Amino acid sequence: MNTNDRIIKLREHMAMLGLDACIVMTQDPHGSEYPADHWKLREYLSGFNGSAGTLVVTRNHAGLWTDSRYYLQAEKQLRGTAVELHKDGMPGVPDPISYLTYLLPSGSTVGVDGFTISVAEYRSYKSTLENFGINLRVDIDLASELFIWRPKLPQSEVWLVDKKYEGLSRREKVAEVRKLMAEQKATHYLIASLDDIAWLTNMRGSDVEYNPVFYAYMIVTLTEEHLYIDPHKLTTAVSKQLEDDGIIVSKYEHYERNLGNLPADARVYFDPQRANARNFLALPKACVRVEGPSLVLGLKACKTTFEIERIREAHVRDGVALVRFVRWLEQSVGKVRLTEMDVSNKLTSFRAQVDGYISDSFENIVAYGPNAAIVHYAPTIEGAAALEPQGLLLVDSGGQYNDGTTDITRTIALGEVSDVECLHYTLVLKGHIALAQAVFPEGTKGIQLDALARQNMWRFGVDYGHGTGHGVGYCLNVHEGPQSISKKDINATMKPGMLTSDEPGIYVEGSHGIRTENLTICIEAKRTDFGRFFALRTITMFPIDKKPILVDMLTASEIKWLNDYHQDVFDALAPRLEPDEIEWLREACLPIG
Amino acid sequence: MNTNDRIIKLREHMAMLGLDACIVMTQDPHGSEYPADHWKLREYLSGFNGSAGTLVVTRNHAGLWTDSRYYLQAEKQLRGTAVELHKDGMPGVPDPISYLTYLLPSGSTVGVDGFTISVAEYRSYKSTLENFGINLRVDIDLASELFIWRPKLPQSEVWLVDKKYEGLSRREKVAEVRKLMAEQKATHYLIASLDDIAWLTNMRGSDVEYNPVFYAYMIVTLTEEHLYIDPHKLTTAVSKQLEDDGIIVSKYEHYERNLGNLPADARVYFDPQRANARNFLALPKACVRVEGPSLVLGLKACKTTFEIERIREAHVRDGVALVRFVRWLEQSVGKVRLTEMDVSNKLTSFRAQVDGYISDSFENIVAYGPNAAIVHYAPTIEGAAALEPQGLLLVDSGGQYNDGTTDITRTIALGEVSDVECLHYTLVLKGHIALAQAVFPEGTKGIQLDALARQNMWRFGVDYGHGTGHGVGYCLNVHEGPQSISKKDINATMKPGMLTSDEPGIYVEGSHGIRTENLTICIEAKRTDFGRFFALRTITMFPIDKKPILVDMLTASEIKWLNDYHQDVFDALAPRLEPDEIEWLREACLPIG
Repeated sequence: MNTNDRIIKLREHMAMLGLDACIVMTQDPHGSEYPADHWKLREYLSGFNGSAGTLVVTRNHAGLWTDSRYYLQAEKQLRGTAVELHKDGMPGVPDPISYLTYLLPSGSTVGVDGFTISVAEYRSYKSTLENFGINLRVDIDLASELFIWRPKLPQSEVWLVDKKYEGLSRREKVAEVRKLMAEQKATHYLIASLDDIAWLTNMRGSDVEYNPVFYAYMIVTLTEEHLYIDPHKLTTAVSKQLEDDGIIVSKYEHYERNLGNLPADARVYFDPQRANARNFLALPKACVRVEGPSLVLGLKACKTTFEIERIREAHVRDGVALVRFVRWLEQSVGKVRLTEMDVSNKLTSFRAQVDGYISDSFENIVAYGPNAAIVHYAPTIEGAAALEPQGLLLVDSGGQYNDGTTDITRTIALGEVSDVECLHYTLVLKGHIALAQAVFPEGTKGIQLDALARQNMWRFGVDYGHGTGHGVGYCLNVHEGPQSISKKDINATMKPGMLTSDEPGIYVEGSHGIRTENLTICIEAKRTDFGRFFALRTITMFPIDKKPILVDMLTASEIKWLNDYHQDVFDALAPRLEPDEIEWLREACLPIG
Repeated sequence: MNTNDRIIKLREHMAMLGLDACIVMTQDPHGSEYPADHWKLREYLSGFNGSAGTLVVTRNHAGLWTDSRYYLQAEKQLRGTAVELHKDGMPGVPDPISYLTYLLPSGSTVGVDGFTISVAEYRSYKSTLENFGINLRVDIDLASELFIWRPKLPQSEVWLVDKKYEGLSRREKVAEVRKLMAEQKATHYLIASLDDIAWLTNMRGSDVEYNPVFYAYMIVTLTEEHLYIDPHKLTTAVSKQLEDDGIIVSKYEHYERNLGNLPADARVYFDPQRANARNFLALPKACVRVEGPSLVLGLKACKTTFEIERIREAHVRDGVALVRFVRWLEQSVGKVRLTEMDVSNKLTSFRAQVDGYISDSFENIVAYGPNAAIVHYAPTIEGAAALEPQGLLLVDSGGQYNDGTTDITRTIALGEVSDVECLHYTLVLKGHIALAQAVFPEGTKGIQLDALARQNMWRFGVDYGHGTGHGVGYCLNVHEGPQSISKKDINATMKPGMLTSDEPGIYVEGSHGIRTENLTICIEAKRTDFGRFFALRTITMFPIDKKPILVDMLTASEIKWLNDYHQDVFDALAPRLEPDEIEWLREACLPIG
């Protein structure tokens, strides 16, 4: 069956259910960024396998919405199908719900699987649709009917974080959560996010590629912690430890039923952005619903001093692996045949030799020349381009280590680089430095800082479609909240201890793509009569390629930042390297200007 | 009766109504920034007369919330009363509703006059309070009972905008509104905002000081326009013109009743930020409510090419008046005794001589030395400081002209200026220039641009509590939406034709205050493969005082901007000036650096 056949099957099923349209979301019931294959119905139906996208099917139309990172990929993957691409975020492109209100007459019914939509989305969709007399049903389970050869829910074992890497113990974390519950007068706190649960329980898993999380739900009451998880995932040792720490284990599939059995006088706290609509609708009518951002989210985001030291150490080891990788790359390009895929595999093999390596933190992006303009490009064995000793290679990669998660992008000149590539490379670097140098008052949100990284390229009429910075976990998801430095307003301020990326880019379709990314830790920079001021301290340790820089376009302050950074990199990495590696690094870290 | 007596009376009245707390808002039923005196209950009860503030009174507590512009003023005016000041926007200060949820037990009742609270506020208050088991009543009319010597609703006559200043005719504007209604499938559009009504009807009034608006409501249907207004405000000529244009006039006080009589199949569009809760609750249950931002707001904000030309001309005449004013000021300071009040009166008298002058566009801020740290300081006859030939004088003022509204701030060195004043002056100037030079893509919101004006001062641990830019009307309110360049996320993008201020500042309590403000028009700067890029073109024409500038702190690009701007100012104003005024201007516009 191809995509068109699957859409036809879906339409037959919609007709049976009395639906005029249906929405197929990308999420799993936990709002995970990377859901397990079990939940990849949108990919199964549409053939588009980007990490973000919404499929909308009516009797006569089928459309897929995705954001600018995936425009090119979606165009490719939808070519020849009846599914039309809607470029989310482009001026004049209505969102899926507005689109449905244009298309459907009053009295129509739209269906969506309530497990795959957050409470916040559910409300917003429902209220907009109702304004146009359209009903929204969430008691729909399309996957069971349509998803042939559907993968099972993952059953991999979970493991306990070693005490020597713990920022806080399980009991300490639960105590912090209870303090926040008390502020909200909440008696029950429902947790659906997998990384929140991994953080709170100091456990990790491998249910999902790249994110060391496991499928589970939690309910924290004033006196108890309930973990809903497939018991096969727990070894005897883990069960024992959980028991010792007073965590009560129930079956994963009992969660929804237990929600329905909460006491009528419960004051239930949950995050409407994270809880799914089905679970929400299962709550007893009488419960008071107290809603707000995940209580764990803010605690998890602000790394402890101990964690920051560990993260710094993990980044030094990661930098050592990258020195070996880039030296190998420079020595090999133009001498042996190398594809993007070869480079990606080699990169992973260098990282895998690092102490404490668990896995990559996401799929390596190794993108040569025009491929780098596809923002989330990952090479495939068949399609990988061969590298030549010219142009730019973009490498975005990271590792999961016991003591931290890394995420770094470098764009490397493999030889001759064009004038416009140099201009764009320099504008990206200026943007990167502007954010790295920023000082800002307590209370500042990411959306306020985002333009600092873009202001210089905007003057040249250039911009990029992705965010500038995302939160990163501690041996956890490489993307985490609440902070986000982007054009979207996320109601979260930057706080000391937050680990955040700084990654502006420029992408020219059919030509080249450039991105320079370091991770930063938010620190307190100064206190004045005007309050506390924060800054971002760069924690990634690896030189930025100097060859494509137009030095005349840099200000004195930007040159100083780069030279200081390279000195820090040299000092951090050199003691761990062999003599010839040190020579390479010394060259790479020589000051400019 | 003093403030404490009035609070006691209020508590007696609350007891009678069975209220445990009440909230006294600042708005009138139209969400006006400057309500008529008739609606100034909060000021009457608390004694605080700033333009923003919320009074909350429980059986045992009385608190006033206001923002950083008014911290100092509120401290002064509340001193010696039982009303406690809560500094809105300071870290750790809960908003009034959270405060009530802390204070009041479940089962309590809070009252607020439903005419003085928007639908959006009403919903948010109600849902938060209900989470804590607290009821919210909006059928409360405190003013009629408590407001002794309450001023009547204003009854001044309205006037028609002269055809020669009309950007679009009444009929053209209504047609634009109907297009937007059709997109929303709305059959009835309710308008409460006074400036929206003034814009749509091409009428002006003088019900409120500084804002040339008049009290009225409107309902636009698919075929009719209904204006609800006190008929005494309409001369025979105006009535005739409205009749000719097909506008149906009803009495102001019939509005609420007529809302209740809308047909059951009506699809009623209104702006929940602008409509008041009482009117909202009067709508028939059966109506479909279609909610969204005021349809007029976006149309009004984007000035037509014709209006921009008029506005430019008004700014040149305003600049001429300011040349005369500042020359007079420089010649007088240190020679005759001058208070801030004298200066303010003189400034108004210079503006009043300008062709087309209607009134000032807001109360002149003439603030000397430490007074300038009080952001919305206005001198009073008794309290005005006397000027000396030293330090800084901040003058923020504007005019309402037939062909435009102006708003300009200059901070002027009257003599010797301290090092820190020069540093702060230069940081403010760098911020002003950064925004004036900004280029940004279509879709950019004000919150994204705000930090550009702050980034330099943030590095010095300095910030300001107000926004950086607000929209300005065309012979209308000096503050209008939807755009706002500030730390608050307003869901409105910058669009060509928008008239917006650029006004960073620095305020040091007890020492000095600095602000530099010009108005700008948003224009399209370039189109590239990355889309449309906009920029802000400065439209205010008056030199910026060069004496306090630390030239070494400016970049080459900042120096060029200032010199180019001064050349534009000279070219625009010189042809309208007397020879000795030209000499003064030539000096003021000489290049630096």
